[in-house]
Amino acid sequence: MEKKTIWDLGRPSVDQYRSRPKLPIALIADNIRSLNNIGSLFRTSDAFLVDRIALCGISATPPSPEIHKTALGAEDSVDWIHYPTVTEAIDALRADGFTICCLEQVKGSVALDKFRPDPNGKYAVIVGHEVDGVSQEAVDAADICLEIPQYGTKHSLNVSVSAALALWQIFTALRPE
Amino acid sequence: MEKKTIWDLGRPSVDQYRSRPKLPIALIADNIRSLNNIGSLFRTSDAFLVDRIALCGISATPPSPEIHKTALGAEDSVDWIHYPTVTEAIDALRADGFTICCLEQVKGSVALDKFRPDPNGKYAVIVGHEVDGVSQEAVDAADICLEIPQYGTKHSLNVSVSAALALWQIFTALRPE
Repeated sequence: MEKKTIWDLGRPSVDQYRSRPKLPIALIADNIRSLNNIGSLFRTSDAFLVDRIALCGISATPPSPEIHKTALGAEDSVDWIHYPTVTEAIDALRADGFTICCLEQVKGSVALDKFRPDPNGKYAVIVGHEVDGVSQEAVDAADICLEIPQYGTKHSLNVSVSAALALWQIFTALRPE
Repeated sequence: MEKKTIWDLGRPSVDQYRSRPKLPIALIADNIRSLNNIGSLFRTSDAFLVDRIALCGISATPPSPEIHKTALGAEDSVDWIHYPTVTEAIDALRADGFTICCLEQVKGSVALDKFRPDPNGKYAVIVGHEVDGVSQEAVDAADICLEIPQYGTKHSLNVSVSAALALWQIFTALRPE
């Protein structure tokens, strides 16, 4: 089979992308420490038509050379807003009709692969700090907690990877065919 | 809901993990340039019970402080083997009964979310170079090409993220309940 060229892929420009409709998916970064991880969240959100990223607390915001290094320009295509606290982000997204989904290893969680998003729903995914995970206040405020089944030696996956898996689970239920 | 502690999670030690059965999933790294990405492939493979990683061509191998930085020890729990060329890795895995799945944007690909792995199958996923992607020789040798649907401005996702999504798609079809 023949590899697609950049012309075959027909990627939109930043201006074209910004004017197009997005999916009703939001990403909430609850105190993400690493600029590389923030950049990666932008790059993944760009691919999956994420409506907006809520950067909370210590999570860094564009413009930043370190964010650019992994976002590769996606920090310009994806809408973002900073909130001082994750609670404010949750309140704003809930008021806008989003179901708040916390991605964390908690008692009573739903396994991510068993989660079946409503194709007509609106979903906000909270991902947390590289070591401490999602804060307890965000867990308490969420409508549902999703957990990635893991069988390895490590405590958890990298947050860029975890976020991508959760966005993928929702994106594939909501995406245009 | 209450967050799980490290004791609740009951993660195995490296020795315990190595002695446990894995899933019939292999990952083939076709000339991955970045040590951070190699480390991330180990960390994700550890979580998803990947049987082995085939590191091909210029792909770096453990031990390496840079790989350790993102693998966080998973380079010791997951089996790996280096092959001078991706063709040798493909031949070895095919001889061992693996279906060879190339993760690349090609004409005639199957959308990753439409791919339904046989729960009794054995799957090897090839991921490629950060800029050039999977080599044409690997595309030509594969049994199937999987493509991640993407709608953004960027050419592609980060290879650590792409690999995780492909492994997830197979892992969730094969994993124990």
